[in-house]
Amino acid sequence: MTTERKLLLVVEYDGTGYCGFQYQAGDPTIQDELEAAIKKLTGERLRVVAASRTDAGVHAEGQVVSFRTSSSLPQHTVVRALNYYLPEAIAVRAAYEVDPGFHVQRRARSREYRYRILNRDVRSPLEMRTSYWVPQRLDIEAMSRACGALLGNHDLASFTSREGVARGTVRRVYRAEVCQEGDLVVFDMEAGSFLQHQVRLTVGTLVRVGLGKLSPAEFESILERAQPGLAGPSAPAHGLCLKRVNYDPPLGF
Amino acid sequence: MTTERKLLLVVEYDGTGYCGFQYQAGDPTIQDELEAAIKKLTGERLRVVAASRTDAGVHAEGQVVSFRTSSSLPQHTVVRALNYYLPEAIAVRAAYEVDPGFHVQRRARSREYRYRILNRDVRSPLEMRTSYWVPQRLDIEAMSRACGALLGNHDLASFTSREGVARGTVRRVYRAEVCQEGDLVVFDMEAGSFLQHQVRLTVGTLVRVGLGKLSPAEFESILERAQPGLAGPSAPAHGLCLKRVNYDPPLGF
Repeated sequence: MTTERKLLLVVEYDGTGYCGFQYQAGDPTIQDELEAAIKKLTGERLRVVAASRTDAGVHAEGQVVSFRTSSSLPQHTVVRALNYYLPEAIAVRAAYEVDPGFHVQRRARSREYRYRILNRDVRSPLEMRTSYWVPQRLDIEAMSRACGALLGNHDLASFTSREGVARGTVRRVYRAEVCQEGDLVVFDMEAGSFLQHQVRLTVGTLVRVGLGKLSPAEFESILERAQPGLAGPSAPAHGLCLKRVNYDPPLGF
Repeated sequence: MTTERKLLLVVEYDGTGYCGFQYQAGDPTIQDELEAAIKKLTGERLRVVAASRTDAGVHAEGQVVSFRTSSSLPQHTVVRALNYYLPEAIAVRAAYEVDPGFHVQRRARSREYRYRILNRDVRSPLEMRTSYWVPQRLDIEAMSRACGALLGNHDLASFTSREGVARGTVRRVYRAEVCQEGDLVVFDMEAGSFLQHQVRLTVGTLVRVGLGKLSPAEFESILERAQPGLAGPSAPAHGLCLKRVNYDPPLGF
């Protein structure tokens, strides 16, 4: 009898060439690549489960995935060998063994996403893969004020698609902040979990605030009315990055 | 009679797909792309001159190039139109008109280069285009001490190739600093001008110091002996970026 164990991987990827995390017949996804690399390492055909599904073109610094394996390879060997087999756009940063009942989505206390806007008059070749270029000057102060309304428990139905509302739309937002770093305007959001397209619809709406097309009060009213279709447009995928998934206790303890 | 004028462009590029700045028959270079875009805009076949030639794979945030043109288009139109014609890996950040005798290389007071090292145990998909991955832990303090020896006027013959020594190898170094930003070790160097491969040979040697293979005193002795072949190995091109070229008075004044 082989003993199965459950492993968690912390994964970084450049989502540029991928149709998102999750398996889709015929399209290259992060999940395909991870499962192919695990098969090369262990010989097992298996499915990995992600803590937060990312859309086509979205990046990750700290996605977390889990899978069951009969392999008894030590964690550091798993990391090194998977990085050997994975394409250069994907890397495993760490591996942890968890108890078999650990659910990578349900056990996550929060997820942190970052959205990067390049706010200068000309486009940037060095930033183009990981930031959304907005040439008109943004009013950061107005965007910051609008963000404040997001903190706490809210029905976020306005910030998802019509398909996204099926399973309940109340979420707890721990952090929603805009800050400026040189030519970059960085939006950080931490929440218990996220609705589909939530960050990109939030950023698209905040950019309207930054351009003076919407006041912070109007932003708050869109939030309060809690209906899909009011917010947006959706900011492009390539500015978005899943920074980390937090567990309690933290991974590795 | 058409009046010629001289324009300076500040140019950013991702050097990944290019064989360096300077024209080379049969290979794609930054110079080719700039000249092709200028020809589309003005109809003129001309040569641009760069303040600091960058090698194959090296990036730039603030390269400066000059050219003479009969075009009387306003500077902001030149910027916008060139960015329309240029491939997405290259962008013009600004354009300035200067007097016809202005020499973009000789008039430069200093150049600033930055070299980025990713110092963590696993490779990074999001940093791979613009940083050199060193998995072994670097001793930043030792690297900083070694750097100090570079400041001031020195014969830098040790930090160039045998071909690089032809035209004199004494240079004034204004800044040579190592600092840590998270997983990144950033090396900044500002000098009046640079010898061929100077930054990459300096970084390759500093990494040996960081790994404990060379002491700061041995680094200083390599500098003092002033002979090509003592330093190195050369750190890879993709970690290097030409940050800016400084003029006195600054451009735009």
